[in-house]
Amino acid sequence: MVTITDRRMELLTAAGTLFSRWGYHGTTVRDLAKELDVQGGSLYAHIAAKEDLLWEIVDRVAARFQEGADAIGESLGPRERLEALMTAHLETVAAELHFATVFFNEWQCLSEKRRARIAQRRDEYEAMFRRTIDQGVRQGIFKVESPKFAAIYVLSVLNWSYQWFKPTASLPIEGVAKQFVALTLRALGAQAKNT
Amino acid sequence: MVTITDRRMELLTAAGTLFSRWGYHGTTVRDLAKELDVQGGSLYAHIAAKEDLLWEIVDRVAARFQEGADAIGESLGPRERLEALMTAHLETVAAELHFATVFFNEWQCLSEKRRARIAQRRDEYEAMFRRTIDQGVRQGIFKVESPKFAAIYVLSVLNWSYQWFKPTASLPIEGVAKQFVALTLRALGAQAKNT
Repeated sequence: MVTITDRRMELLTAAGTLFSRWGYHGTTVRDLAKELDVQGGSLYAHIAAKEDLLWEIVDRVAARFQEGADAIGESLGPRERLEALMTAHLETVAAELHFATVFFNEWQCLSEKRRARIAQRRDEYEAMFRRTIDQGVRQGIFKVESPKFAAIYVLSVLNWSYQWFKPTASLPIEGVAKQFVALTLRALGAQAKNT
Repeated sequence: MVTITDRRMELLTAAGTLFSRWGYHGTTVRDLAKELDVQGGSLYAHIAAKEDLLWEIVDRVAARFQEGADAIGESLGPRERLEALMTAHLETVAAELHFATVFFNEWQCLSEKRRARIAQRRDEYEAMFRRTIDQGVRQGIFKVESPKFAAIYVLSVLNWSYQWFKPTASLPIEGVAKQFVALTLRALGAQAKNT
């Protein structure tokens, strides 16, 4: 994980707030300077271009999703692996809620090369879900007509969470994950676990 | 359903294209005039404010979702009703893909009163899904821990579709609906249908 300075995080947080409120194209460097209470010109000591801030936010969230998946042991079976992938994804959305909002709403505003890199990482991430489901189907654990569709289905449930999830003491993300995992395992035709 | 003139639709289509590409706050009336190849000032003969166009688009999509639900017969049981609600929702997303993108991404840019009206209609729409699931649970057709969560789960699957669905001859929205309905009925613990 890349560590960044407090000052950089302050800058990214301000950018994230404005991009999610006004959109990337609706936010100017002048708006950002005002939010940070500094002179517009002095911001250019920290950033070469407004797009670099969007890139840093989007890249950070993409990296967090990937790190969450990478932390899952290789030895898990498909059912347990899918549970862990779903839980890690929702935990990242909850932990990075503001940045995740920018990630999902604004990543297409990136310039072509950067957009292509994110699209590729997204495709690889989706493929990981598809392979897990596919493996489960081959082992007789899941029963689905199309692992490709099932992966889109599962990621729809996970991705939309940034739109409605508000962390509260009475509803932590772990509670959401538990219910969504239970519903999804049934959707995929998973057999009840032997306990 | 409200019918509008070709000229009005041309205006809304141009606004929808720009809002989905640049965001509502990132689009100016001047951009819109350029897209329509008219003088900026002459646009004000057709619109009182840029926000009115966003409102027309968002209101249109909200109305289509509601019309789709209203067209479903009252006599259906919970299982068939949920199937019909899901299919109608996905068909609206597919038929209004560009406007639906603006609806989901930009509705929060509306001014406070209009935003509150949309939030209320969204809540009522979600409640309709929740009641259908709840009714199914009481009739022993569905088995879920929380109908509220299950409704959010189902709407997540449906709403995210605007992000990835591209209509093609090989994958019409009916095919998506069929697979998503099948997965969702299993998620809700629906018993296999007697045939």
